Amino acid sequence: MPNLKLSNVGKKMNHLTGVREIMKDIAATLRSDPSKKWLNLSPGNPIVLPEVLEMWRTYANELVNSSEFGPVIGRYGMTQGFDPFIEAVVGAYNKHYTWGISRDNVLITPGSQSLYFLCANLFGGERDDGKGMQKILLPMCPEYTGYDGVVLDKDILVSVRPHIEILGAHEFKYQVDFSRIHVDESIGAIMLSRPTNPTGNCITDDEFKKLHAIAKQWDIPLIVDAAYSPPFPDLAFVPMTPFFDEHILHCVSLSKAGLPGERVGIAIGHPKYIEALEPFQSNVGIHSSRFGQALAAKALSSGRLAEISSSVIKPFYRKKLEMFRNALHERMPKDFPWYLHREEGTLFAWMWIDHPKMNDLEMYQKLKEQGLICVPGSSFFPGLHEEWEHKQQCLRFSMTATDEEISAAAEALSVVCKKL
Amino acid sequence: MPNLKLSNVGKKMNHLTGVREIMKDIAATLRSDPSKKWLNLSPGNPIVLPEVLEMWRTYANELVNSSEFGPVIGRYGMTQGFDPFIEAVVGAYNKHYTWGISRDNVLITPGSQSLYFLCANLFGGERDDGKGMQKILLPMCPEYTGYDGVVLDKDILVSVRPHIEILGAHEFKYQVDFSRIHVDESIGAIMLSRPTNPTGNCITDDEFKKLHAIAKQWDIPLIVDAAYSPPFPDLAFVPMTPFFDEHILHCVSLSKAGLPGERVGIAIGHPKYIEALEPFQSNVGIHSSRFGQALAAKALSSGRLAEISSSVIKPFYRKKLEMFRNALHERMPKDFPWYLHREEGTLFAWMWIDHPKMNDLEMYQKLKEQGLICVPGSSFFPGLHEEWEHKQQCLRFSMTATDEEISAAAEALSVVCKKL
Repeated sequence: MPNLKLSNVGKKMNHLTGVREIMKDIAATLRSDPSKKWLNLSPGNPIVLPEVLEMWRTYANELVNSSEFGPVIGRYGMTQGFDPFIEAVVGAYNKHYTWGISRDNVLITPGSQSLYFLCANLFGGERDDGKGMQKILLPMCPEYTGYDGVVLDKDILVSVRPHIEILGAHEFKYQVDFSRIHVDESIGAIMLSRPTNPTGNCITDDEFKKLHAIAKQWDIPLIVDAAYSPPFPDLAFVPMTPFFDEHILHCVSLSKAGLPGERVGIAIGHPKYIEALEPFQSNVGIHSSRFGQALAAKALSSGRLAEISSSVIKPFYRKKLEMFRNALHERMPKDFPWYLHREEGTLFAWMWIDHPKMNDLEMYQKLKEQGLICVPGSSFFPGLHEEWEHKQQCLRFSMTATDEEISAAAEALSVVCKKL
Repeated sequence: MPNLKLSNVGKKMNHLTGVREIMKDIAATLRSDPSKKWLNLSPGNPIVLPEVLEMWRTYANELVNSSEFGPVIGRYGMTQGFDPFIEAVVGAYNKHYTWGISRDNVLITPGSQSLYFLCANLFGGERDDGKGMQKILLPMCPEYTGYDGVVLDKDILVSVRPHIEILGAHEFKYQVDFSRIHVDESIGAIMLSRPTNPTGNCITDDEFKKLHAIAKQWDIPLIVDAAYSPPFPDLAFVPMTPFFDEHILHCVSLSKAGLPGERVGIAIGHPKYIEALEPFQSNVGIHSSRFGQALAAKALSSGRLAEISSSVIKPFYRKKLEMFRNALHERMPKDFPWYLHREEGTLFAWMWIDHPKMNDLEMYQKLKEQGLICVPGSSFFPGLHEEWEHKQQCLRFSMTATDEEISAAAEALSVVCKKL
C-alpha cells in the first residue's frame, strides 16, 4: 500500500466493507478458472427479464427521438430531480396509497445507496455541542451490509440482535427484540430495510408501528429502505402497506425494477428532511443523472412499472425461492438442523445452519470446492459488535440463478452438510 | 428552520455555499415577473448545440436498439466504470497525448463535482495522528465555487491571492503568486481548474510545472480540474498540453461537451490515487449511471467527441466572448476602469471594475434593475479568508446568451457604470 496522506474520513472510506470484500474474492475465484462452470448464487445483480427490458426500451426509443432528449442529457438539472419524474412519483404514491404527498416531499438521488450515505451522515456522526457521537440505530440485524460502507465514521452504526422464532422443521423468522432496544439522546435516526436484504424478512405492521412510535417520541426520522417494497419493485410476498408520517423517510430504489445501471433512488418524507438532504446532495454531486429519471417518469406515470412489478418481477423470484426450498427439502440430509428464513420478500434465500461446527466463512470455502458460490452471512450484521454464534451460522443465496443451477446448488449444499 | 438533530458534517453540508445561494435569488427573481424578458447571463448551463445533440442522439439510437442496452441499464456495474468507456478513455488519451496510460489509471465518477468531493475529503480533513486538520491548497483564486461545497469541514480549503497583470486598457490576467504559496506537512493536496472557471484564465505551462514540482516534493497529488481542457470539451483558447505524471490527477468532465444531464466525470491518475478513490465511491454510491458512459464510449472511441469539441463547441463560445468584448468597447463610458480577463478558455467572461465604489453584490442588484442578471464575483474566492477589495470588484457573465442578449447586456452594464 503506498504511503498516502489520508484524512480520517479517507482512511474509513477508502476500503471496502462487509460483503464487498467477499465480492472481490468471488471475482478472483471466477477469474481463476474461467473454463469451470461455477454455480454462482452470490450476485445481488438482478436478472434482465425480457418483458421488463422491452418496457424500458420502448420508453427509451420514445425519449431519444423526442424534443425532451436534448434538455434531458444536454442541460444541468435541479438538484431535487427531473421535474416530470418528481410529478410522476407524487402521482404514483398518491394513487397507490392515500398519502396526499406533494413535490415538497420528494428528492431524487443517484441510487438509494447514495441516499443512505446522505441520511447516515446528516443524522449520524460527531457533534460539537458536547454530545459526542450521534448514532444511527439499526433496530434489527441481519441487515443490508451497505450501511457499513456509507457511514463516514466506523462508530456511527449500532445494531440490535433479533429474537428468532422457529416456524417449522426447516423454517424460521426474525422478530424485532424490543427488550434490547434502548433509545436515548445519542440516537440520531432509526434505519431498516423492509423487506430486508439479505434475509427476506418483512417486519410486521405491528413492529413497524412500535418503531415509528419510538422515532416520534424522540423526534428523529425512521428511515425505511424500501428497495424491495410495493408498489415497485414489489418483491414483498406478504401483505404490507407502507404508511406515511412526519417521522418516516421512505427510500425507494428502481434497481430491482430493471434499472440498476441507471442509479435512481427516491426519498419521500417530510419537507424538513427533504430540505436538509437536498443541499447535501447538491454539494456532493449537483444532481442525479437524468436519462434514467426521464425513463422512469414514463414508467411511473403510465402505471406500467407497478403493473409489471406485480405481474412479472415478483412471481419470477417467488417461484425461484419455492424451487430452492423444495430442492433443499428433497436433498438435504435427514435431521440436519437447516432453516430457511420465511420468504416474505427480496430476491435472496437466507439459510441458517444451527450446528456447532457451522462457520460461514469455512462453509463458503467448502461450497466453493463443490463449485457453488454463495455469500457468507457474517457480513450482514453491520453495527452489531457483540459476539453471537448466529453471526457465523448463516449463508445468503441469490435467486437470480437458472432453475438447473438452483437445483444443483441444493445438491452441493447437501454434500457439504453431510460431511459437517 | 425545524429543529433537526444534525451531525457536524450534516450542519456543514445541509446548506448551499457560494454561487448556489445567489442562484436561488436568481431563480426567485426570474419567477417574480415571468412576463419580463430578462437578460440572463448567469447560468453555467451550456447551450444544447444542434450538431452536438445530433451526435448524442445518433449514438443513443444505436445503443437503445442494440443488445448492449439490457445490461447497460439492467445490471449493476463495476465501481471503476463501464468497461468499454474505460477502454475508450485510455485509447483517447493515449492517442491525443503520449501518456501511455492503462485501465488502472482510470476511474469514472457520477460527474466531476462528485470526484472533487471524493478527492477533497480523502486528502483533506481531520487526522487522528496529532496532525490536526489536513488542508487542500488552491494555489490561486478566483476559483470554482463548487470546491467550497464539497468539503465536509469548512476549514479544509486554503487559497492564495494571485498577482494581477494589466495587459492593456481593458484587459488583465491573473498569475500564480508563488511568493505567497507556503506548503508544509499540513497540505494534503493541491487543486486547481485549468482553464479556470470562472475567469477564463489558463495558468501557463511554466506555472503548472512549478506547482507540479511542489506536489512532487511533498508527495501529494496535484488535482487538475480539466472541465474546460482539451481534448474535450476543448474550451482552451491558448495552446496547452496536459501532461501526465505520478503526482497529477486529471479530472475530466463531459458536461461542457453536451452531456451535463448524464453526470459523467473521469479521473485519470496514478493507480495509487485511483485505488484509494474507488472504494470511497463504491461506499458512497456503488457506481456511476451507465447510459451516459455507454454513449460517451462511442463518442470517444470514434474520435467524434474531440472533433466536434474543436470544430463546433470551442468556436461557438469564443465568438460569443469576442462579441461581448467588442460590445463593451463600443458602449462602456470612456476612461472607466473596466477590465476583462484575457480570454484563455471557458464559457464565461470575467469582468473586473477597479473603482472605489464598486461592490459586486450592489452591482448585481443594480444590474437586475436594468433587466440584466449576472453572477457577483465574491462567490469565487473559496478558501481565501483575508480581506481584499478585489473580491468585491468582479462579475461573471455567461456566454450562453444569444447575440442580441450579449449586446443588450453590454448596454445595461454601461448604463449602470455611468452612474457609479
